[in-house]
Amino acid sequence: MTGSVLRSRPLTSAAMLAIFDDRAMLRHALAFERELARAQAAVGLIPDPVAKRIGRACEDIEIDPAELADEAAMAGTLAIPLVARLRAVLEDNFEAAASVHRGATSQDLADTVMMLQAREAADLIDTDLRRIVGKFSLVARAQADTPAAGRTLLQDALPIAFGLRVAQWLAGIEDARRRLEQSCGEGLRLQLGGAAGTRTGLDGKGGQIGASLADGLGLKASVAPWHARRGHVAAIAAALGIVAGALGKMARDIALLSQGSVGEAREPMIEGRGGSSAMPHKRNPTGSQVALSAAFRTPGLVSTVLAAMPQELERGIGGWQSEGPVMAELFLLAGGSAEAMALVADGLEIDREAIARNLSRADLGEDIGEARAIIEDLLAEYGAVD
Amino acid sequence: MTGSVLRSRPLTSAAMLAIFDDRAMLRHALAFERELARAQAAVGLIPDPVAKRIGRACEDIEIDPAELADEAAMAGTLAIPLVARLRAVLEDNFEAAASVHRGATSQDLADTVMMLQAREAADLIDTDLRRIVGKFSLVARAQADTPAAGRTLLQDALPIAFGLRVAQWLAGIEDARRRLEQSCGEGLRLQLGGAAGTRTGLDGKGGQIGASLADGLGLKASVAPWHARRGHVAAIAAALGIVAGALGKMARDIALLSQGSVGEAREPMIEGRGGSSAMPHKRNPTGSQVALSAAFRTPGLVSTVLAAMPQELERGIGGWQSEGPVMAELFLLAGGSAEAMALVADGLEIDREAIARNLSRADLGEDIGEARAIIEDLLAEYGAVD
Amino acid sequence: MTGSVLRSRPLTSAAMLAIFDDRAMLRHALAFERELARAQAAVGLIPDPVAKRIGRACEDIEIDPAELADEAAMAGTLAIPLVARLRAVLEDNFEAAASVHRGATSQDLADTVMMLQAREAADLIDTDLRRIVGKFSLVARAQADTPAAGRTLLQDALPIAFGLRVAQWLAGIEDARRRLEQSCGEGLRLQLGGAAGTRTGLDGKGGQIGASLADGLGLKASVAPWHARRGHVAAIAAALGIVAGALGKMARDIALLSQGSVGEAREPMIEGRGGSSAMPHKRNPTGSQVALSAAFRTPGLVSTVLAAMPQELERGIGGWQSEGPVMAELFLLAGGSAEAMALVADGLEIDREAIARNLSRADLGEDIGEARAIIEDLLAEYGAVD
Amino acid sequence: MTGSVLRSRPLTSAAMLAIFDDRAMLRHALAFERELARAQAAVGLIPDPVAKRIGRACEDIEIDPAELADEAAMAGTLAIPLVARLRAVLEDNFEAAASVHRGATSQDLADTVMMLQAREAADLIDTDLRRIVGKFSLVARAQADTPAAGRTLLQDALPIAFGLRVAQWLAGIEDARRRLEQSCGEGLRLQLGGAAGTRTGLDGKGGQIGASLADGLGLKASVAPWHARRGHVAAIAAALGIVAGALGKMARDIALLSQGSVGEAREPMIEGRGGSSAMPHKRNPTGSQVALSAAFRTPGLVSTVLAAMPQELERGIGGWQSEGPVMAELFLLAGGSAEAMALVADGLEIDREAIARNLSRADLGEDIGEARAIIEDLLAEYGAVD
Repeated sequence: MTGSVLRSRPLTSAAMLAIFDDRAMLRHALAFERELARAQAAVGLIPDPVAKRIGRACEDIEIDPAELADEAAMAGTLAIPLVARLRAVLEDNFEAAASVHRGATSQDLADTVMMLQAREAADLIDTDLRRIVGKFSLVARAQADTPAAGRTLLQDALPIAFGLRVAQWLAGIEDARRRLEQSCGEGLRLQLGGAAGTRTGLDGKGGQIGASLADGLGLKASVAPWHARRGHVAAIAAALGIVAGALGKMARDIALLSQGSVGEAREPMIEGRGGSSAMPHKRNPTGSQVALSAAFRTPGLVSTVLAAMPQELERGIGGWQSEGPVMAELFLLAGGSAEAMALVADGLEIDREAIARNLSRADLGEDIGEARAIIEDLLAEYGAVD
Repeated sequence: MTGSVLRSRPLTSAAMLAIFDDRAMLRHALAFERELARAQAAVGLIPDPVAKRIGRACEDIEIDPAELADEAAMAGTLAIPLVARLRAVLEDNFEAAASVHRGATSQDLADTVMMLQAREAADLIDTDLRRIVGKFSLVARAQADTPAAGRTLLQDALPIAFGLRVAQWLAGIEDARRRLEQSCGEGLRLQLGGAAGTRTGLDGKGGQIGASLADGLGLKASVAPWHARRGHVAAIAAALGIVAGALGKMARDIALLSQGSVGEAREPMIEGRGGSSAMPHKRNPTGSQVALSAAFRTPGLVSTVLAAMPQELERGIGGWQSEGPVMAELFLLAGGSAEAMALVADGLEIDREAIARNLSRADLGEDIGEARAIIEDLLAEYGAVD
Repeated sequence: MTGSVLRSRPLTSAAMLAIFDDRAMLRHALAFERELARAQAAVGLIPDPVAKRIGRACEDIEIDPAELADEAAMAGTLAIPLVARLRAVLEDNFEAAASVHRGATSQDLADTVMMLQAREAADLIDTDLRRIVGKFSLVARAQADTPAAGRTLLQDALPIAFGLRVAQWLAGIEDARRRLEQSCGEGLRLQLGGAAGTRTGLDGKGGQIGASLADGLGLKASVAPWHARRGHVAAIAAALGIVAGALGKMARDIALLSQGSVGEAREPMIEGRGGSSAMPHKRNPTGSQVALSAAFRTPGLVSTVLAAMPQELERGIGGWQSEGPVMAELFLLAGGSAEAMALVADGLEIDREAIARNLSRADLGEDIGEARAIIEDLLAEYGAVD
Repeated sequence: MTGSVLRSRPLTSAAMLAIFDDRAMLRHALAFERELARAQAAVGLIPDPVAKRIGRACEDIEIDPAELADEAAMAGTLAIPLVARLRAVLEDNFEAAASVHRGATSQDLADTVMMLQAREAADLIDTDLRRIVGKFSLVARAQADTPAAGRTLLQDALPIAFGLRVAQWLAGIEDARRRLEQSCGEGLRLQLGGAAGTRTGLDGKGGQIGASLADGLGLKASVAPWHARRGHVAAIAAALGIVAGALGKMARDIALLSQGSVGEAREPMIEGRGGSSAMPHKRNPTGSQVALSAAFRTPGLVSTVLAAMPQELERGIGGWQSEGPVMAELFLLAGGSAEAMALVADGLEIDREAIARNLSRADLGEDIGEARAIIEDLLAEYGAVD
């Protein structure tokens, strides 16, 4: 049994895939168990050597992901077989074996792993979005006085500045970046509630342990367990949908502008990119294809996270179990889109002659109204500071 | 031709329907044209008496919504027939007739009307959500020491405090309320860009006019036209989805708790509410039904707004035209849910005997862990101040 | 309180709105009660004069939809206040009053009304789709030898025949029409199960009564009550989504082909259609806008119907109550799209000069491969017989 | 770079994962190229030995999926690097190298591979669904006289027969199975159209080649290329959504029936299944969890396939590229759900004592109306023949 990189890789980046692959998931899961033990030792719930013994086991254990996945499928959660394997490794140390995962529930592990992956993925997306904003801050200004045919409902309408189009892309993307940053800033939280969200079995020290565990993992502590309260997860999902939408807007425009009879902009020539298996002469807007695919696929995934919100009582059935894979998919798609469009932005070819020719053909005059002022307003609000 | 109140009313409130009915839409559309003329006069673009004449026409004109709707369907936008009718009324004043809608495009009107309706609707939702939070702040504390069976995957798990369940509902709802407040706070913006988003035809005074128009309508001015940049609309849509999800979580739990064999909570007895056409003795969780319906219906609507984001060039085709009715539907559903659950929260019946009986039957002991501390943490963060 | 025709009319047709307006819903609801009584008299469950008395009441009763809607919102179902009003009208005839709605539950009424509206709406859509297929059967053949630039990923690729493009639209639409016909043919069923789906209270004659009632209403009888078994409803929803998608495909192509720098096809000139409030000279693809809006909005609605399928036990909470308005919206949107594109198909302007010019500019040669044979194959399978 | 089995395996079956893993995708892709050459030789387009040489290369070539995935991500399609690698292997035979993939386009390969995987996956699902129907045909009859509390809106309503509940599950699942069978029966088609869907470059023998290729791969030939006409793909997607919904209905009911205070049914005890990492004593409805997760996740995926239907001109951008991974996900989820619920059906424990106790507590009497007749009607229509 293998996963499928052929299916997932073309719509994301290698770096993003690595954040969500089996090795990474196992690494985070074992970090959770290790840091949980450490945090419990720090407050005196378990002896320090026991925590150290657990920590070593988490670092040394060798696990075949496919085997573990089979066991997880049977058990219904990843935590059960993972903890069983850790206990097997610790069979020579009864106290350590008994202390693994103490006070935690499967969902504590699953949610925290999701958050750890999300943090890394969000950082990667942020970097790519900033790259686009930085590049387009220059391009928007450089094309601020280039009159171009403005098009509405795909019909020639009134002249714009080509730089206004770019500034609008930039503004949409920077706005989306800020939303993602904000939703992650407050939403990437530790989960630690125990079986029913009461932190039972931690001698009343659960609050402290949670704070220490969050600290060890580099996450924000949470006000309280959130097993069946998922608003902040849905908010991150929505922010990713908006990122994909803003990038998709840029991609759709570039695909339209690179039509043969328009030719105002083209994706950069990149070795091995944008070819055609049937027409070697053709140059396809492959980056835009990736971004548009992401824009098609993310809305349905966001709707899944929203639909899963009314989770039953203390911990639901079917709802939160849907979130992990869907959130991963959202990050993979938004991340793939961000990387693809960062490459496009870096080398976007703008053809001023074609722009002038199209404007002239459309016979719209050259009055670009307040386009220049609007570009400056957009850059002041959303542009990259040099 | 009539609309259908029989279809829409049962899932929303009369107040919310009124915000989105034809009269309200016309009122806002005419206010846009009136205030646009006023703002143009204020900067000297058109003479003051002309603006006043337009203003009077906007106040006096009588329009049959059904006729206008037919014309709008033919024209493809509401603005075209509306402006034509205003001009007909002003036929005795050539300058006024020519000045109506000057520099504006159909989408300026449509987007601004959407924002004006959204502002009223968001206020109404905010009020109902605060009511729930206020009420449950008391209930959570009152039930902080009531041990109850915690249930995970719908199975009896460990004891909780019943007040913890209520505090979690409250926290989810208050968190959603804050998200809506924030997304509306920064997203309810005026639209004024003209045909291609360049504010052409306003003598370079478009920025000032926009600021004055926004002021006149009580909206936030926007950094720049946003005809094809819709992130903030999508963010409001998502916030409404999260509101419906948080209310749906409360509703699902109450429906589960009011099962005959559970009986821990029931919706309040309200005259005329919750009956059955076949079984007069039955008492249905009708408020929860409304909230669950909203939670089912909003995710698909949010996905529509997200999917419509990659709009073509300066103003797209099909995308933004989808938003208005979908945003209205989202507000109607979230608002209906909020009102229904506010009624439920006001009179929620909690049966401590049934709670105790179920806990005892489940044989889980009475150790509620740190439930009390968690309730206090939740109330400190999300609860209503007395 | 009024509904909003300004919001709904622009994206549908007057005829489709009429099928789903309050008058129609009331007419169907009263027909259900009248025919139920008639069917019960036919098997001897109630006396014939009682059924006749109920029938007259159903025909004579005057109901203000807005008032009834308020009551329905409070009661949670339409049936409760409707039956109460019928009983009030019949207060002089105790047996008739007691026999109204006998053995039926609210959902029996709601589902049957939905089906009655669906039948009329499906017929209307069918007619418009056939119109398109008929027209395009001629156009495809007429343009079978017109070489045109084929475009893939929006890039010029290889020559096609323009008629092949039209034949592909036609095939997609006819295929969608057949799917809708089939899903409605087997899915438009009567609902009659009583409170828990057992036809209790009908003296064991429920099967016969159902058959007679279905007959009276012109619906297919159902194998059994389907209160919580909704596959056939979801199948109709999906078929409507496919109709909107196939029409949206045609619309997207026409919007692209009518771009200023392409100009291969244009929507017909229709008085009052396709103008611009800012640019009187402009001619917008307004029909395509309607169809694309429908294609944006239907997928999320279909997902709602699918998501609502796991309904609780004998009759669920929130799920089926979501279906009625969502199915209505699906029909309104698909129907609006079908009418809009039928108008477009009727008068689609094809510019052979522009087609030749674009092909020449793209420098693709004129080898259209097997386009002619493929057109014939498509017409043989999907085309209209003359 | 690895895929993630830890993320995907818990919600599907090992067999289903194998159908969609990299090895399978490569096997199908190479079979397409091999059979394409064979079919071309059969009509004399290329010499027989050339086809044989290509066929051997397809069988012998060794490809590292991760490397190929990286290349495909860069190229924008799988076909480009795959064909390049085949040509490299054939560098000693110029004619063979030149003949690989002749007349085909990337999408021909991608769509055909999707169809080949779909066929295997649909068969697997069909088998599991038949298993459930077979088992429940017996159970429904065995429990036809077991009175039970019928519940509507989760409230006790009227008595039913427990077997009626089972028969309704069965009917929903068999109905969904037939829809899937039908949509696959007519929808699993070969794709072969070449770059612009005209079968150019095949000497006018494209029709014959397509028929032969379809035959070689065990697929149905298509009337014509369907690069941008996707109704039958959407129909399969919808059918999978309905399968997941019907299974989700059964799962939701079983989760509700296995609540501690209800106890009418329980999932079978299976070694290693349904445990809890925090509460070893607990027995979770793990199969229902899998099925409910699938029911949450499929609707958004179906909406993606529908939303992608309006694909641009001859072959679109972003739309069809979204379909492959989404269809795979739909099959994986529906298949995982079917396997999980087949296991549940095989050993479902029904507790007649609890059923009787609940009915008695609800005080609803024992009149089950026409339940027995309805069960027989459902079995006659949907049940398995012995």
